[in-house]
Amino acid sequence: MSTGVWLVGARGSVATTSMVGALALRAGLAEPTGCVTEHPDLRGSALPPIAELVFGGHDVVTTCLAKKAETLGEAGVVPPRLVAAVAEDLAAVEENLRTVPVGGTQAETAAALAADITAFRDRLGLDRVVVINVSTTESLPEPRPAHTELDLLRAELAGGGSPLPASSLAAYAAFTAGASYVDFTPSTGARLPALDALARETHLPYAGHDGKTGETLVKSVLAPMFAHRNLAVRSWSGLNLLGGGDGANLASPGPNAAKSASKQRVLAETLGYEPQGNTRIEYVDDLGDFKTAWDLVSFAGFLGVRMRMEFSWHGCDSALAAPLVLDLARLASAAHRAGRHGPLTELAFFFKDPIGDVPHGLSEQWDLLRTFVAGLPEA
Amino acid sequence: MSTGVWLVGARGSVATTSMVGALALRAGLAEPTGCVTEHPDLRGSALPPIAELVFGGHDVVTTCLAKKAETLGEAGVVPPRLVAAVAEDLAAVEENLRTVPVGGTQAETAAALAADITAFRDRLGLDRVVVINVSTTESLPEPRPAHTELDLLRAELAGGGSPLPASSLAAYAAFTAGASYVDFTPSTGARLPALDALARETHLPYAGHDGKTGETLVKSVLAPMFAHRNLAVRSWSGLNLLGGGDGANLASPGPNAAKSASKQRVLAETLGYEPQGNTRIEYVDDLGDFKTAWDLVSFAGFLGVRMRMEFSWHGCDSALAAPLVLDLARLASAAHRAGRHGPLTELAFFFKDPIGDVPHGLSEQWDLLRTFVAGLPEA
Amino acid sequence: MSTGVWLVGARGSVATTSMVGALALRAGLAEPTGCVTEHPDLRGSALPPIAELVFGGHDVVTTCLAKKAETLGEAGVVPPRLVAAVAEDLAAVEENLRTVPVGGTQAETAAALAADITAFRDRLGLDRVVVINVSTTESLPEPRPAHTELDLLRAELAGGGSPLPASSLAAYAAFTAGASYVDFTPSTGARLPALDALARETHLPYAGHDGKTGETLVKSVLAPMFAHRNLAVRSWSGLNLLGGGDGANLASPGPNAAKSASKQRVLAETLGYEPQGNTRIEYVDDLGDFKTAWDLVSFAGFLGVRMRMEFSWHGCDSALAAPLVLDLARLASAAHRAGRHGPLTELAFFFKDPIGDVPHGLSEQWDLLRTFVAGLPEA
Amino acid sequence: MSTGVWLVGARGSVATTSMVGALALRAGLAEPTGCVTEHPDLRGSALPPIAELVFGGHDVVTTCLAKKAETLGEAGVVPPRLVAAVAEDLAAVEENLRTVPVGGTQAETAAALAADITAFRDRLGLDRVVVINVSTTESLPEPRPAHTELDLLRAELAGGGSPLPASSLAAYAAFTAGASYVDFTPSTGARLPALDALARETHLPYAGHDGKTGETLVKSVLAPMFAHRNLAVRSWSGLNLLGGGDGANLASPGPNAAKSASKQRVLAETLGYEPQGNTRIEYVDDLGDFKTAWDLVSFAGFLGVRMRMEFSWHGCDSALAAPLVLDLARLASAAHRAGRHGPLTELAFFFKDPIGDVPHGLSEQWDLLRTFVAGLPEA
Ligand SMILES: NC(=O)c1ccc[n+]([C@@H]2O[C@H](COP(=O)([O-])OP(=O)(O)OC[C@H]3O[C@@H](n4cnc5c(N)ncnc54)[C@H](O)[C@@H]3O)[C@@H](O)[C@H]2O)c1
Ligand SMILES: NC(=O)c1ccc[n+]([C@@H]2O[C@H](COP(=O)([O-])OP(=O)(O)OC[C@H]3O[C@@H](n4cnc5c(N)ncnc54)[C@H](O)[C@@H]3O)[C@@H](O)[C@H]2O)c1
Ligand SMILES: NC(=O)c1ccc[n+]([C@@H]2O[C@H](COP(=O)([O-])OP(=O)(O)OC[C@H]3O[C@@H](n4cnc5c(N)ncnc54)[C@H](O)[C@@H]3O)[C@@H](O)[C@H]2O)c1
Ligand SMILES: NC(=O)c1ccc[n+]([C@@H]2O[C@H](COP(=O)([O-])OP(=O)(O)OC[C@H]3O[C@@H](n4cnc5c(N)ncnc54)[C@H](O)[C@@H]3O)[C@@H](O)[C@H]2O)c1
Ligand code: NA
Ligand code: NA
Repeated sequence: MSTGVWLVGARGSVATTSMVGALALRAGLAEPTGCVTEHPDLRGSALPPIAELVFGGHDVVTTCLAKKAETLGEAGVVPPRLVAAVAEDLAAVEENLRTVPVGGTQAETAAALAADITAFRDRLGLDRVVVINVSTTESLPEPRPAHTELDLLRAELAGGGSPLPASSLAAYAAFTAGASYVDFTPSTGARLPALDALARETHLPYAGHDGKTGETLVKSVLAPMFAHRNLAVRSWSGLNLLGGGDGANLASPGPNAAKSASKQRVLAETLGYEPQGNTRIEYVDDLGDFKTAWDLVSFAGFLGVRMRMEFSWHGCDSALAAPLVLDLARLASAAHRAGRHGPLTELAFFFKDPIGDVPHGLSEQWDLLRTFVAGLPEA
Repeated sequence: MSTGVWLVGARGSVATTSMVGALALRAGLAEPTGCVTEHPDLRGSALPPIAELVFGGHDVVTTCLAKKAETLGEAGVVPPRLVAAVAEDLAAVEENLRTVPVGGTQAETAAALAADITAFRDRLGLDRVVVINVSTTESLPEPRPAHTELDLLRAELAGGGSPLPASSLAAYAAFTAGASYVDFTPSTGARLPALDALARETHLPYAGHDGKTGETLVKSVLAPMFAHRNLAVRSWSGLNLLGGGDGANLASPGPNAAKSASKQRVLAETLGYEPQGNTRIEYVDDLGDFKTAWDLVSFAGFLGVRMRMEFSWHGCDSALAAPLVLDLARLASAAHRAGRHGPLTELAFFFKDPIGDVPHGLSEQWDLLRTFVAGLPEA
Repeated sequence: MSTGVWLVGARGSVATTSMVGALALRAGLAEPTGCVTEHPDLRGSALPPIAELVFGGHDVVTTCLAKKAETLGEAGVVPPRLVAAVAEDLAAVEENLRTVPVGGTQAETAAALAADITAFRDRLGLDRVVVINVSTTESLPEPRPAHTELDLLRAELAGGGSPLPASSLAAYAAFTAGASYVDFTPSTGARLPALDALARETHLPYAGHDGKTGETLVKSVLAPMFAHRNLAVRSWSGLNLLGGGDGANLASPGPNAAKSASKQRVLAETLGYEPQGNTRIEYVDDLGDFKTAWDLVSFAGFLGVRMRMEFSWHGCDSALAAPLVLDLARLASAAHRAGRHGPLTELAFFFKDPIGDVPHGLSEQWDLLRTFVAGLPEA
Repeated sequence: MSTGVWLVGARGSVATTSMVGALALRAGLAEPTGCVTEHPDLRGSALPPIAELVFGGHDVVTTCLAKKAETLGEAGVVPPRLVAAVAEDLAAVEENLRTVPVGGTQAETAAALAADITAFRDRLGLDRVVVINVSTTESLPEPRPAHTELDLLRAELAGGGSPLPASSLAAYAAFTAGASYVDFTPSTGARLPALDALARETHLPYAGHDGKTGETLVKSVLAPMFAHRNLAVRSWSGLNLLGGGDGANLASPGPNAAKSASKQRVLAETLGYEPQGNTRIEYVDDLGDFKTAWDLVSFAGFLGVRMRMEFSWHGCDSALAAPLVLDLARLASAAHRAGRHGPLTELAFFFKDPIGDVPHGLSEQWDLLRTFVAGLPEA
C-alpha cells in the first residue's frame, strides 16, 4: 500500500519539518515522538508505515528545500545532524515539487494542479495520494452561491470566474485527481457544501481544520476538567506570541480573525457557555518558530469563591505540527483505501476547528479516534 | 431516603465549609457550583438531595462551629453573609457533634465512636449514615499482621492492643455501626485488608483516598494529553505552597511524604513511565486557605526538540474540597442503598490515590463515574 | 499647614479609596502601607500629615460616596469594616463635592471650577489646595496653536472656543484658583506649553503623568537590571487584563493607545533601544478592580544564548493608586509652600510617563525623590 | 598590562564557557553581551581588555577542554561554530592547566598550587594573576581557631594539619603566590579572618561570594521596589530547578544549605525584615545547564489588601556566569594594579552574598561599582 503525500505549501516550515522527520525515521535515525499513530493503542498494520510515505507538493515560492531544512536546523526546529543525514533523500523529494501556476483562469489552474498530482501518482506508481494543505493561512472569503452548489461552482469556473480561495481550489484539484484532502490550516479548504458534494461524488474522504498543536490542545483538556468539576469559568484570556513566517501572516487582520475564532470555539463547546475573554495572536519576529502562549482562567468555585489558573506553553510549532501531518497522511490514506468518503469527523482529535458535530474535549476525541483506527481493515 | 453525613474532623475547615454550604444550598441562598453530582450528566433522582443531608461528626477539639465558620468567612473561604444566614442551622448541627474519647483502649474507643454514630442515626431517624474522614492527615503506620487479617485485628483489639491509626479506627467504628466510609485524606483509613474484609462481612461500601482538588486534578488531564500526543515528558516538578491548619500539618515529614507520593502517582500511571522531578509541599502560614501550586513540565517532541509548559494554580482548598465531600456523601449513600459493598472503585474521579486498579486519567474516570451513576436505582 | 486635596473624578474608585484610607489612617484604624512618603527615608516634618488632609472634588456623576465605598468594600478593594468605621467622616466629605457644570463655554466652565476650588479653600480655611486628576482617561487631543501659546489659549477661550480637553481645563482652573495640579492619569492635563506658562505665571507647581502602579513599576526595575548586566533584551511583550470602570474605558481605542504608549516608554528610555513587542490592555469585566498583567521578556546573553523571563502581577489597582495619591498631595503641597513652580520633575518616581528629561529607572528616581524631600523646608 | 586568569575548576562548565567566550571575542567572532564591564558607563582604558586575558588553572579531573567545550556546544550553552573556531586557541590553554596534587599535607598542596600559579605568571611574562574559584561548591566547614588567626593557621599547616577547605587553600595559595583571589562560589574561600590578614600582609585584594546570575539577581531589584513603595512583603517562596554538574552537587544537603541561605539574604537586607518562605534548590538532571526558577511574592498594600507577583526565570547558568568571570578578572587585576588590598566591597554588584557591610539593592551596588571603576587609574 504505497501512499503519496502531496503537500500544498511544500517549502514551508511545517512541510519541510515533516519531510525531514519522515526521512530520518526511515533511515532509523529518529524516534516517532509526537506521532499519535505510533501510540501503543493505535499502532498497527492498518496504516501505511511512515517509512513508506512518498512526498511531493506545490508551493508558490522556489526556495530550495535543502536550504529551508538548513535554516530550520539553525533555528533549533530540527537537529542539524539529521538535516545533513537526509540531504540526499531531500534532494530526491525536490524533484517532486511543482510551482503553483500563475496567470490562467481558476479552471486552468485547477486542471494544472490536478495534473501535477496525477503525474506524481503515476510516475511513482503510488496506490493513492493524500493532499495536505500546510500553506499560508488565508482570510475567510465572502460567501457566494457557487460555494453552496456544485453545479454553480462548475459553471462559474467554466465561465472563467474565480470563485474559490486558493485552499479550496487545492481541494477541488485534489478531488478531481482522485486524491483525499486534509486541511491543516484554518483556511476554507474543502469546507464548502459544493466541495463536500464533489468529495462524495468522487468517493473521496477529507478532513480538517487547523492542526491543534499548542494552546488549544491544552484548552481541550482543561475546559472539560472545569466542566466535569462543575466549576464556573468566568473568564479565559490568552495571548499567543509567535514569530516565523506563519506568525507574520497571522498578525494580519484577516488570518488573525480566522485563527482567533477557531481558538475560542473549544470553550463554548465544552463548557456549554462562553466565558469572558479573548485569545490574541501577536507577532514577535524574534521568537522565531518557538511560540509562547499564556492563558489566564478565572473561575468561581463553591459558594462563589474566586480562584484562578495560569499556564504558559513554550512550544516549537513546526515540531508539534509535523508529526501530526504524518499521522493525517496515514489516516486519510487508510480511510480512502477503506472506501470512506465525505468528512472524516473521527479525526477531530487533530484539529482546533473540527468538521462536523463532534466532541471538543480531547479525551472523547481520543476515544473516537481509537474506535476509528480499530475499525480500519488491515493492509 | 434520609442520609446522615458523619464527619471525622467535623470542626476543621473542609468539614465546616461543607456544612455551611449544604445549609446555604438548602436555604436557597447558593448555587451548587463545584458539586460534581449536579453536573447535567449525573443529576437525577438516584442520589439523596444535598438539601436533605443531615450532619454530625467527631473531632478532637471543641472549637465552636459558629466561630470556625466566622473565621472562614473572614478568610474569604465562604461569604460572610452566608455564615450569618445559616447561623441557626449550624447551631443545630453543633448538637450532633461529639468529641473523640481519650484514655481507653482502642477497642473501647472504637465502641464509643460506633455508639455515637448509631445514636446519631437512631435519634434522627436516618436511613443510613456515611462516615467521611476529613481529619488531619496522619503519617503512614508501620505494617503489622493485624492489618492483613481481620481475625488477628479483632484479637489484638480484644487484647487491649493499639494496632490501628486513628483513621482506620474510624473506619472500623463506621463498619461496626453499619455505616459506609469514605476517606478524603491520604491517611490509611479503610485501606487495610483486614478492614476490607470487615466491610465485606458487614456488606458496606467504602471509598478513598485523598480528595483530588488542585494540582493533581490538573495533572490528571495534562498527563493523558501528553500521553495521547505521544510526546515524551522528561521532567515534571512542582511546588505547593499552602497555609492553614492542613498546611501546617502537611509540612511535617510524615504526612508530607504520604501526600507527595500520592501526588506523583498519576504521572507514572497515565504516562507509562516516571518522568524526573518531584512535587514539594511547603507551608507558608501567610497564604492561609489559599494555595498556590506551580508545576514545570519539560518534554521532548518530534526529533527530540525540547519544549516546556508551566502552570500556576491559585485555589481555595476548602472551597474545592467541600462540594466533593457532599458528592461523596450522596454517592456512598446511594451505593449503600443499592447493596454495593467493598471498594467503590468507580469513584476514582474524586481521588488523588484511588483504590483499586483503575484509570488515572480524569476523563476515563469521568466515564466510569457516569456509568456508575446511571446504574444506580432511582430513589 | 493645612492642605486641601481637590480630586477631579472624586466619586471614582481611586478617589474613594484614597479618602476612605486617609480617614481610616486619621482614625488610627489602619497603617500607611503603600504610602511612599511614610518610608523611613522620607518620613519627616516637611510634609503635611496624612491625617490632616482635607478632601473635596469634582465629578460628572452624582453617585453617593458612601455607596461607592460600600461597593469597593464588597469587591475586596477596601476592608468593609473600615468603610463602616469612617461613614460619618465620609458623609462630611460628601459636602465638599461639586458637579462639573455643563452647558456653558469652556471659559465659563473653567471659572466655575476655579470658584469651587477657591470656595473650598476659603470655607475650610486651608493654607493651600492641590488639585489631583483621577478622572476617566481621555483620548489624546489634536494639537492646536492654543496649546502652545498662553495668549492664544486665553484668546480662544475668551472667544467662546473649546480648545482644551477636560483634564487640561481642570489644570487651567486649578492654576487660576492658585492651586497646584497633579495628573495621575495619562490624559493631557497640564502638559501643554500654554499651561506650563500659566503655572509659571501663577507661581504654581505641577506634576504627572499616569500613576505607576503595576506592570510599569516592575518594568522600571527589571529593565535597568538587564541594562546594567549588558544583556540584550530582544522582545518584551505584555498583556494587561483588567475590569472595573477604568478597564472599560481603557479598552476603547483612544485611551488604550494613550496608555499603551506610556507603558512601553520606560523600555526605550532605560535600555537605550526599543525591543520588539507591545503591551496590550484588555477589558475583562469579571476581573473587577483586580488586574492581572503578564509579561514575557526574551533576551540574549553571552555568545548570543537565548533566555527568557516571565512575570505575572496580580494587583488591586485602586489600592495601589490610592496611597500614591496621598503621597502626591503631600509632596505637591510642600513644594508649593516651598515656592517651587513649574514641573516637579523630581516626582518621576510616581509616574509611568514622567514630565521632563528624567531617569526612567526606579532606583534613580528614588534617589531624586529622596534628595527632593531632604531639601524641603520643615513645616 | 597583561593579566593572567587562573581558574580553580578550570575544566568545569563556567570556566570553559568563559574561556571559549574570551577566545571568540579575541577572534572578533562574538559580542561582549553580558559583560558588565563593557557597559557604556564602565567601559574604558582602566581595565585590561578581554582580548588580552591569558588563561590557566587547576582542576581535579583531567577531561580534555576541547571535549568539554564540544559538550557545551551540543547542550546549547555556546554556539558549536564558536567552539570549532577557537579549537586551536583552546588547545594552547590546555597547556596551562594543572591537576590539583593529591596525597601531600595541606602545606605541601598549597606550596604546589602556588608554584603552579607562579610558573604560569613567569612562563608567560604576565604582569599579574587573578585566581578565580569556579570549582564545585563545598559544604561550610566547622569553625576552628586557625580560621581566625593567621599565626594559628600557619602553625597548624606547618604541623601537617588540614585546617582549610579546598577553596580556602586555593585562596591561601593565591595570596602566597602574589595573586588576587575572587570567589565565584558560595564556598568559604578567602572569607576567613586569617586569610583576610594574609591578603593585607601580602597587599592583595580579594572579592566574593557566589556569582549573582539568576533568581537572586531578580530579587535584588524587586525587593527594593517593594521596599521603596512601602508595600509589605508577606511571603517570598522560590524553587530553583537545575541540572548539570553544579545542580547535582547543589542537591546534596551541605552545598544546598550554603546556597539557599545565600539566596534569601538579599530579602532581609533590602526589606529590613524577613518575609515568610524559603528558596529551594532541586536537581532535575534533564534540564542540563538551563535552569528554571520560579518565585511567588505575596504582599499587602494599602489598607491590607492582598496582592501577589510571580516570576519564572529560564536562564543558562554558565552563559550568565561566564561574562561575569571575565568582568571580575578585569576588575580584580585593575584593583591589584591600583594597590588595593583586602576585600573589594565595591564589587557587591556581582555577588549573591557580598563581603562587607554593603547595600544589597542592585541599583545601589551599581552606583558603587561605577564610582569604583571611575576611580581606577588609566592603564
Ligand atoms: N505549526 C503549527 O503548529 C500549525 C498549527 C496549525 C496550523 N498551522 C498552519 O500551517 C500552515 C503552515 O505553517 P508554516 O509555519 O509552515 O508556514 P510557512 O509560512 O513556513 O509555510 C507556508 C508555505 O506555504 C506557501 N504558500 C503560500 N501560499 C500558497 C499557495 N497558494 N499555494 C501553495 N503554497 C503556498 C508559502 O510559500 C510557504 O512556503 C499555516 O497556515 C499555519 O497557520 C500550523
Ligand atoms: N482541602 C483540600 O483541598 C483537601 C484535599 C485533599 C485532602 N484533604 C485533607 O482533608 C483533611 C482536612 O483538611 P482541613 O483543611 O479541613 O484541615 P483542618 O486542620 O482544618 O481540619 C482537620 C480537623 O481534624 C481534627 N482532627 C484531628 N485529628 C482527629 C482525630 N483523630 N479524630 C477526629 N478529628 C480529628 C482537627 O481537630 C481539625 O478540626 C486533611 O487531612 C487534608 O489533607 C484536603
Ligand atoms: N488605579 C490605578 O492603578 C491607576 C494607575 C494609573 C492611572 N490611573 C488612572 O486614574 C483614573 C481613575 O481611575 P479609577 O479606577 O478611579 O476610574 P473610575 O472610572 O472608577 O473613576 C473615574 C471617575 O472620573 C469621573 N469623571 C469622568 N470624567 C470626568 C470629568 N470630566 N471631570 C470630573 N470627573 C470625571 C467619573 O465619573 C468617575 O467617577 C483613570 O484615568 C486611570 O487610568 C489609575
Ligand atoms: N553558573 C552560575 O550561574 C553560577 C552562579 C554562582 C555560582 N556558581 C558556582 O560556580 C561553580 C562552578 O559551576 P559549574 O557549573 O562550572 O560546575 P561544574 O561542576 O561544571 O565545574 C566545577 C569544576 O570544579 C572542579 N573541581 C571540583 N573540586 C575541585 C577542587 N578542589 N579544585 C579544583 N577544581 C575542582 C570539578 O572537577 C569541575 O570541573 C559552582 O560552585 C557553582 O555553584 C555558578
Ligand atoms: Na509562568
Ligand atoms: Na505564572
